Amino acid sequence: MTLTGHLLIGNTDTAASHGSMKALNPATNQLLEPDFAFGGVADVDRAAILADDAFDVYSHTSLAQRAAFLESIADNLEAVRQDLAERTSLETGLPAAQFEGETSRAASQFRQFAEVVRRGRFLHLAVDPAQPERQPRPRMDHRLQKIAIGPVAIFGASNFPISYSVAGGDTASALAAGATVILKAHNAHPGSSEIQARAIRKAVQDHGLPEGVFSMVRGGGNVIGEALVDHPLIKAVTFTGSEAGGMALYRRAQLRPDPIPVFTEMTSVNPTLILPHALAARGAAIGDGFVERMLVNVGQACLKPAILIAIEGVGYNVLREAMNKRVSEAPARTMLTPGIHAAYVKGLLAMEQAGAQLIGVGTTAEGDFDGRSAVFEADGEQFLSERLLAQEIFGPSALLVKVRDEAQLLAVARSFRGQLSATLHLENPDLALAQRLLPILERRTGRIVVNAFAHPQEVTYATVHGGPFPATSDSRFTSVGMTSIERFLRPVAYQGFPDALLPEALRELNPLDLPRLVDGQ
Amino acid sequence: MTLTGHLLIGNTDTAASHGSMKALNPATNQLLEPDFAFGGVADVDRAAILADDAFDVYSHTSLAQRAAFLESIADNLEAVRQDLAERTSLETGLPAAQFEGETSRAASQFRQFAEVVRRGRFLHLAVDPAQPERQPRPRMDHRLQKIAIGPVAIFGASNFPISYSVAGGDTASALAAGATVILKAHNAHPGSSEIQARAIRKAVQDHGLPEGVFSMVRGGGNVIGEALVDHPLIKAVTFTGSEAGGMALYRRAQLRPDPIPVFTEMTSVNPTLILPHALAARGAAIGDGFVERMLVNVGQACLKPAILIAIEGVGYNVLREAMNKRVSEAPARTMLTPGIHAAYVKGLLAMEQAGAQLIGVGTTAEGDFDGRSAVFEADGEQFLSERLLAQEIFGPSALLVKVRDEAQLLAVARSFRGQLSATLHLENPDLALAQRLLPILERRTGRIVVNAFAHPQEVTYATVHGGPFPATSDSRFTSVGMTSIERFLRPVAYQGFPDALLPEALRELNPLDLPRLVDGQ
Repeated sequence: MTLTGHLLIGNTDTAASHGSMKALNPATNQLLEPDFAFGGVADVDRAAILADDAFDVYSHTSLAQRAAFLESIADNLEAVRQDLAERTSLETGLPAAQFEGETSRAASQFRQFAEVVRRGRFLHLAVDPAQPERQPRPRMDHRLQKIAIGPVAIFGASNFPISYSVAGGDTASALAAGATVILKAHNAHPGSSEIQARAIRKAVQDHGLPEGVFSMVRGGGNVIGEALVDHPLIKAVTFTGSEAGGMALYRRAQLRPDPIPVFTEMTSVNPTLILPHALAARGAAIGDGFVERMLVNVGQACLKPAILIAIEGVGYNVLREAMNKRVSEAPARTMLTPGIHAAYVKGLLAMEQAGAQLIGVGTTAEGDFDGRSAVFEADGEQFLSERLLAQEIFGPSALLVKVRDEAQLLAVARSFRGQLSATLHLENPDLALAQRLLPILERRTGRIVVNAFAHPQEVTYATVHGGPFPATSDSRFTSVGMTSIERFLRPVAYQGFPDALLPEALRELNPLDLPRLVDGQ
Repeated sequence: MTLTGHLLIGNTDTAASHGSMKALNPATNQLLEPDFAFGGVADVDRAAILADDAFDVYSHTSLAQRAAFLESIADNLEAVRQDLAERTSLETGLPAAQFEGETSRAASQFRQFAEVVRRGRFLHLAVDPAQPERQPRPRMDHRLQKIAIGPVAIFGASNFPISYSVAGGDTASALAAGATVILKAHNAHPGSSEIQARAIRKAVQDHGLPEGVFSMVRGGGNVIGEALVDHPLIKAVTFTGSEAGGMALYRRAQLRPDPIPVFTEMTSVNPTLILPHALAARGAAIGDGFVERMLVNVGQACLKPAILIAIEGVGYNVLREAMNKRVSEAPARTMLTPGIHAAYVKGLLAMEQAGAQLIGVGTTAEGDFDGRSAVFEADGEQFLSERLLAQEIFGPSALLVKVRDEAQLLAVARSFRGQLSATLHLENPDLALAQRLLPILERRTGRIVVNAFAHPQEVTYATVHGGPFPATSDSRFTSVGMTSIERFLRPVAYQGFPDALLPEALRELNPLDLPRLVDGQ
């Protein structure tokens, strides 16, 4: 596939207006061809006007049309799987095989959302029929459906360059909702982004949809991102990345004359708690499994388990030893970008300066941007008094926290800020302690996992990839799973409508045969 | 009923720490006994700590317990209906009979939410069962429920001193969600607030719930409100009132280290569009009905129809004349507060200065704070070029906009900012034009009404009392109706849980017999 490096603004391949860049192969520290265009405020404005122009038509597509469109995107992604995987591998230093899998998962996510659209539950249809005889006054007919919020700006993430980027869950759920999308490509994988964007645009064209349904922009610095967040025609924003980056966008959007919802998924250390009987029974397996998951994607994952907490006692030393053994066998691997690598190295230093003890390291780095794996240890008192120990380090490192007793375990659990996930390893005799932990964890996390690890995650109806701040900027939503569509929907009520004027889904005879609540039942 | 003027912080009647106030009878401009305490930051802090302490217990009450508690609040409100109506009448200048009705509606809202709680749909239960045989890797069991977001601060509104105040829909829906509540009483009706708060507190006590489930605070100036919005234990805020007040709270909350959701319901002119055949067929009835609804509650209602738009032609003069007639018969009536009255007088002047022509006025004011009704007229060009004409004036006035043709009608419809409601008056031959208006109105409003008026509103499953900014701060939610509970809920996923550790609603055998989605079905 030939990459042109253009911005894709609707149907127009748009050349650079504000310079350009080349992708970096972080494994070789070599630049890759071709040049990728940087746009400016005027490009964002054009894309936003197109997205707004397209909105009325696209948001009113039938469920069948919209589902077929999403399935075409899935087909188009699968058709470029190999090219996409190879280019993404070059731009990330991660194996191509991983991205063949990620492409398949991204495609299947579009198919899942096609099913969500067909089923129509996301419309939240409700009918409260007229009660002309009611006393003291009659009730008017009330009907409700959800509609898309408007054009949405989506920021591609760096760490899963397909499934959290151009063709990721944010795009799939926004398009499923009926929103039009402007995607800001991440500069860590511009070629991969272009391949994905072309797959989406081809589906827009093949289905005869207005070109503004999807655009992809790119820029240097913050200009493009800020222009998107500021643009009056943009009605919602999603972002996955650092707390600093996410909060800058969030706060900027809240300063607009008309604030808009910004869903940012930011930071999580995904605390893992080993309860005493599980520790005694299988400390080695847990320690080994924990480090294995910590290493996935070179530790560059939002669900990376970063903090393991265990009560000193039977099994503790075995656990510690298993972690040490596993990490010491881990080869240093290329990290996604020089910036991420530099931040990782700094993070490891900060960990030591904060008083954590290094108890195991992987093999020495060879490439310029290789991340050496590391496991630290601290005791409960240290952890509770030094908040830096609870900070996320993006990369293959983790902290083992040795707590004194159950009371300190509960105190440590209570000390966490909002998290995407928490994990409990337990045996039956641990259930009483788990019951005490549960309300503490429910208030602080979006998902709780028992005897497994949160990653890799399922994309299902019961998936929650969200959580209290700073895991996300709004704990009421998830950015992954079938209900992530809710971020882009708002309710509209239709009162006293003649049947002919009602949206089809709300007409009296329910011609689309969709699930509807009637008087709340 | 004896009023003490205390703050109600949990079970403690708390005396003034920062001065006090007396209620004003706006009909007589006389102060009413007794003194009502003003609290300070320390009082908010105490209430917040109690609310947080109570949260785990209250949010884990069974659905049956919580529903019974809500029903007790309804009973307690009904038991004080007469006292409450009389005191509220004294504090507002509105008739006591109106508040007997409002008390009944507030009570029935608590009963409706009890039903919502018992039905359990608000938990959004979802089960995606384990698939141990799935290739290439097994799927873990995933289960989802929604839980309350945490302690909530609710700002009582002035204009419906029961149903949008202490015992209003915000309190009912937050308590139904399992959130604990700190209510900031509005200083326009402190005695009414105390009676309502005592009714709620009695239910908390009678049900043996932790005292922090409900507190009521009050203060002078902005100190108490700001302390609530800033408090780290407060996890959501609701407010109904002016755009300036709402946005000040909203923006303040977004500057917290951990931003929290703030749902503000602010301003709406509720555009009413008369289509040509309806105008020709029943211009007089529409004009008369419009003014009648505009006068409800002395025009102090979020759903007051404030702008009426009609195309010049057959029926227009009849419409205009009917409006003039109705308004000229309207007696001036006492407005809620001196501040609201002053703003109303200023608003009328601004309307004239903006070029609107006064076409009808009600009888002259007698009391100090009586609002004289008024209807203005402007043409479409004026309206489109002078944005001040589209501003809300809180009180009994409205603007008739005479547009030239269909194109100008559409342009005027497009010119509106976000609204709570829009209304269409139409006959069958108007349907084609209505179809063109519909997407324009859907994007700008939370509800669309045909051949009626939005006010008075129903509290049902299909109610939407929300809309794009500046009608509210987040168009994805409603502040009235059964789904207003969504503002206070967040999802939590439970993965791989042993049955005994699962919340009861999610256990394998569905012991509570609640509706659950299984694999999305």
